[in-house]
Amino acid sequence: MLLTDPDRLFPTEPDARALARDIYLSIADMPILSPHGHCDPRWFAENARFPNPAELFVIPDHYVFRMLVSQGVSLDALGIPRVDGTTSETDPRDIWRRFAAHYHLFRGTPSALWLEHSFAHVFGMDAPLTAENADDCYDHIDTRLAEEAFRPRALFDRFGIEVLATTEGALDDLAWHRKIRASGWPGRVITTYRPDAVIDPEFEGFTSNLDRLGEMTGEDTTTWLGYLNAHRVRRAHFREFGATATDHGHPTARTENLTQTDAEALFLKARAGTCTPNEAEAFRGQMLTEMARMSLDDGMVMQIHPGSWRNHAASVFAGYGRDKGFDIPTRTDYVAALKPLLDVVGMDPRATIIVFTLDETTYGRELAPLAGAYPALRLGPPWWFFDSPDGIRRFREVTTETCGFYNTVGFNDDTRAFCSIPARHDVSRRADCAYLAGLVRSGRLRQEDAFELARDLTYGLAKSAYRL
Amino acid sequence: MLLTDPDRLFPTEPDARALARDIYLSIADMPILSPHGHCDPRWFAENARFPNPAELFVIPDHYVFRMLVSQGVSLDALGIPRVDGTTSETDPRDIWRRFAAHYHLFRGTPSALWLEHSFAHVFGMDAPLTAENADDCYDHIDTRLAEEAFRPRALFDRFGIEVLATTEGALDDLAWHRKIRASGWPGRVITTYRPDAVIDPEFEGFTSNLDRLGEMTGEDTTTWLGYLNAHRVRRAHFREFGATATDHGHPTARTENLTQTDAEALFLKARAGTCTPNEAEAFRGQMLTEMARMSLDDGMVMQIHPGSWRNHAASVFAGYGRDKGFDIPTRTDYVAALKPLLDVVGMDPRATIIVFTLDETTYGRELAPLAGAYPALRLGPPWWFFDSPDGIRRFREVTTETCGFYNTVGFNDDTRAFCSIPARHDVSRRADCAYLAGLVRSGRLRQEDAFELARDLTYGLAKSAYRL
Amino acid sequence: MLLTDPDRLFPTEPDARALARDIYLSIADMPILSPHGHCDPRWFAENARFPNPAELFVIPDHYVFRMLVSQGVSLDALGIPRVDGTTSETDPRDIWRRFAAHYHLFRGTPSALWLEHSFAHVFGMDAPLTAENADDCYDHIDTRLAEEAFRPRALFDRFGIEVLATTEGALDDLAWHRKIRASGWPGRVITTYRPDAVIDPEFEGFTSNLDRLGEMTGEDTTTWLGYLNAHRVRRAHFREFGATATDHGHPTARTENLTQTDAEALFLKARAGTCTPNEAEAFRGQMLTEMARMSLDDGMVMQIHPGSWRNHAASVFAGYGRDKGFDIPTRTDYVAALKPLLDVVGMDPRATIIVFTLDETTYGRELAPLAGAYPALRLGPPWWFFDSPDGIRRFREVTTETCGFYNTVGFNDDTRAFCSIPARHDVSRRADCAYLAGLVRSGRLRQEDAFELARDLTYGLAKSAYRL
Repeated sequence: MLLTDPDRLFPTEPDARALARDIYLSIADMPILSPHGHCDPRWFAENARFPNPAELFVIPDHYVFRMLVSQGVSLDALGIPRVDGTTSETDPRDIWRRFAAHYHLFRGTPSALWLEHSFAHVFGMDAPLTAENADDCYDHIDTRLAEEAFRPRALFDRFGIEVLATTEGALDDLAWHRKIRASGWPGRVITTYRPDAVIDPEFEGFTSNLDRLGEMTGEDTTTWLGYLNAHRVRRAHFREFGATATDHGHPTARTENLTQTDAEALFLKARAGTCTPNEAEAFRGQMLTEMARMSLDDGMVMQIHPGSWRNHAASVFAGYGRDKGFDIPTRTDYVAALKPLLDVVGMDPRATIIVFTLDETTYGRELAPLAGAYPALRLGPPWWFFDSPDGIRRFREVTTETCGFYNTVGFNDDTRAFCSIPARHDVSRRADCAYLAGLVRSGRLRQEDAFELARDLTYGLAKSAYRL
Repeated sequence: MLLTDPDRLFPTEPDARALARDIYLSIADMPILSPHGHCDPRWFAENARFPNPAELFVIPDHYVFRMLVSQGVSLDALGIPRVDGTTSETDPRDIWRRFAAHYHLFRGTPSALWLEHSFAHVFGMDAPLTAENADDCYDHIDTRLAEEAFRPRALFDRFGIEVLATTEGALDDLAWHRKIRASGWPGRVITTYRPDAVIDPEFEGFTSNLDRLGEMTGEDTTTWLGYLNAHRVRRAHFREFGATATDHGHPTARTENLTQTDAEALFLKARAGTCTPNEAEAFRGQMLTEMARMSLDDGMVMQIHPGSWRNHAASVFAGYGRDKGFDIPTRTDYVAALKPLLDVVGMDPRATIIVFTLDETTYGRELAPLAGAYPALRLGPPWWFFDSPDGIRRFREVTTETCGFYNTVGFNDDTRAFCSIPARHDVSRRADCAYLAGLVRSGRLRQEDAFELARDLTYGLAKSAYRL
Repeated sequence: MLLTDPDRLFPTEPDARALARDIYLSIADMPILSPHGHCDPRWFAENARFPNPAELFVIPDHYVFRMLVSQGVSLDALGIPRVDGTTSETDPRDIWRRFAAHYHLFRGTPSALWLEHSFAHVFGMDAPLTAENADDCYDHIDTRLAEEAFRPRALFDRFGIEVLATTEGALDDLAWHRKIRASGWPGRVITTYRPDAVIDPEFEGFTSNLDRLGEMTGEDTTTWLGYLNAHRVRRAHFREFGATATDHGHPTARTENLTQTDAEALFLKARAGTCTPNEAEAFRGQMLTEMARMSLDDGMVMQIHPGSWRNHAASVFAGYGRDKGFDIPTRTDYVAALKPLLDVVGMDPRATIIVFTLDETTYGRELAPLAGAYPALRLGPPWWFFDSPDGIRRFREVTTETCGFYNTVGFNDDTRAFCSIPARHDVSRRADCAYLAGLVRSGRLRQEDAFELARDLTYGLAKSAYRL
């Protein structure tokens, strides 16, 4: 029995299926561009083996462990470290057994598709994970991980990755990226400028973060102009390590276009820690516009990821910290929120602003109409909870009729689970080919155009939008 | 000609259809669990015949009569009683003829599926209802209703109902439930604790309702602690009549976690009738959290049904009262609204809180992410307007990829139309089997898992979630 | 190669496809009713030739040119006139070449379907437009446009249009309509009463518009009662030119039912130009209710089109004016907003109020439940961005189960692109037939009812709802 169906995610009607398969086969082996994600650059700098199956598949992946938590398994029992540095369960095999015993929870989810793609195509397994074969699977994966061919750089090559972007905070010293460069390894791992910690007045340690930013850049970050210059210096530094993009994870999409006098006054309040919540939001919004202005100068692509209520469960945040599966989407407005920014750079074809959403209702009502008009605006792929077969289908069905394909930017895996990268790109490619085949079979697209589009959705759009 | 298609609601592609049929046939005859509904317990206590076809199918069913009203038939002409006790049209045959003459309005609606399932499978009819055969149909049904086999208890058995939950207000004396118990009839009809009238400060007669609650329980409901104790006493009383769940029909999902001092002060204002609308909302929200705390003690499952603007048409409410088809869904927020409650019991696997919605946009954005993380939270099935083939499909397509199947609770019929119970469960089973077959045929689910899931969605999940 | 697929937009499964085709063929040649649109009545009054392909297909169609703008082509380069009266690019052939060079942007969009329908079925072309054949296509179309058979009246006949409604402002002198009448040409081109400029206190020149309204009607529009009378006079005048409907393009769906004293006070503020934004919104809302009251007297159908943020891009509006593709949908509420109006006329079967939306989330949550209850309310077809194959499918899938087909009003093309009229109606007919075939094949609709419904959706519902 095959662990993955060769025709998975294709339409069920035989002619549409055959066409989807043909389109897919024409692009299945194209290189992977991963212009937005959260892999650890240390993996590629050190090229050490991954420690064990639980630390590869369960502990770092909040998509996976939160599903078990939702059914009553404790974070402790899954080896999630507490903020005090302790870990309750330290035996990776026990963690793996718990994961296997609850594996039925993933039925119908993209996590199952990604995991089984990795099990089958990375690790050569051929049976579904069960409570019964948990130990065998563990041993099988663990043995493979000890092999040279399963080290990070070897997998990077085997996965066919042409570019992999990681994401580093503005204050990161980029030491791992430096080490990758110094090593002479030709894999193209680039960084991304993520300045939330020095842009968000509500971020932990904002004022001291600004001090540190001043030290790193030699700019006077107690002044508005010095602070802006410090961003310019850091952006240039990130560009030395390949960065072509910035990334902004704000609670909302609010932007502002204040006079420089008002912006300066707001900056001084932010620095002094005296902003109201609304002023903090306004400052974040002003900084999006400032970042867009800098992008016109240095050519960095801008990514805006709003709409997540981070750390929703008070007790989980207190006990285990950030990124533990309790980030919940919220309603997000773009039409009013982006207007100040768009009035500054929206009509400038030199700018590229890629917008993501966790609120699918905005695809058709707000984002596609905006991206189908403003030359600076592009739509990021379906993000996070919506990076899934049905999520991708809905994204295409709701956006294409209004803004077409060419105002979208191809796929992002956005993952910190390295082995899921080829799996996620494969799901995206299959889902897009299924959509294209459906358009052809319903007389809405010429067949030769579908083949060309598949190449663009797989490779060309990401290459050009992210300026890779 | 068959009145119902044996393959209805299955996919059209032949292989997927065959698989859906196979899965369906494996669960089609499983017993019905109906853990949430509005049947009248008197039916089973008295076991009297249903009076006539109009009183069975038209007059009590706002799904049915509001569709005729929407096309200009008056409520009077359909025999809907006025609040002053009068009824304009008293001839059930005339009402039935009007219903038949407008039957085309139901094309494409779940009401048509339910009605025709009843006509065909309960009453043995084989032709669609038309203006021409209205009298024949009336006579046919009326004749059947006179037979012993069409009395409530006989139908209960014939429908294969294992458990039927009704819903009673906190002040209900449960006399009909008592009579069912006393009768020795083995049918399992249980009650549900619905305390809106003694929890909602804006409910008609709230203060006197509290007095009555005090009388019934011997607790001092002029005090906050006495009031909470009175709830505990009533909950225990409802549990004697089988209740495993409470039900809360609030305008919004707002919850609160006030200090007991603040809660007490708010209670005193509520009791005095001096709450502002916002305070009334806060009090309802606080009581959801109190109910959740009591659930940890007595094991009752909690159901929250927010988001209906009741009695939207002023003239209909004034003339005919509640539940006349003019309850309209509104936008509903869960992420902020449920946080106070979830911070109290959300991480406790002993709690089960089932949330429903009339705002489909919350499935993917709010409810599935919440249910896919918090162990106490489960998603109720698509409710009311969305209890329909496409409604069920959208529910599965949008929630499964994020929270899987096991954070949902099977099907509720939620009906006051007794004959529609098997029809509604059949629609749900078919729609779920169609979805499962689609997952299998697109390589997203193993076939044997689909069969197991069908049993869980039909029976297992409702059994465990409602602790039946 | 055919430019359009004869089976386009039908389901892919062969039996469903065959049935959809059969249903479609039974209605494909029915006359076109176009009860809501923006064609220029001058075309039919003068019957002059259309000047050239660019002025027919590109310059007047914001669906088309905004897609090129979104990818960096300037409005100037597409010949869009500036508000100062100048035009940068004046060579229609150069504009056409730019359009052809970017034609791939329309892949998967309804614009491509409409354009290719026109190219193939109006102009007899048989190859897709490309940069290479741009000149040939230009010459081909231009040659045809010189022929008598391609003049407006000839096309009107050839398109099979039974009624075409244009839209004129309340202050329009209806001179072109008068000329059409005087010409003796039997084509039925009727007007629609669009009073935004004399109802919206924020409209450019509102006060002088009221003066003009007074002059045109002989009523004293400095008083509330005179102002209302002036509307009555203009409505009657429009009715002489065939109007059966009014149209209201407000930012939101807000309605009011003020006392006549309060309404009068608000009118005086509006006239004096001293309304706050909220008061302006209230006045527009009050006027919707006044228009509804007048509809009870004169039988005019009322259309409400809320939810567009007009002229979102400041620089585009400043440089090029209105209707340049930068109108963006916004979240829209109907449940609270329409209640004042519905409490006045909602239960009156003599009233017909057709509501449109640009917020698809309201279909299932708000609009279908409202239309499925209130006899005065009907749902307009999917509008603007959602007048597309998937938009139509979603509209039917989400509304039908709640309000059925008979609370909808057939199709509107809503276009100012004359040649797209048959294309748009054809897309709508095919999409509806595909939906009907799917219902039949999944056992939710009887086959003979599908054929009857197809006729109603194509012709009958528009005829009756718009009282044509």
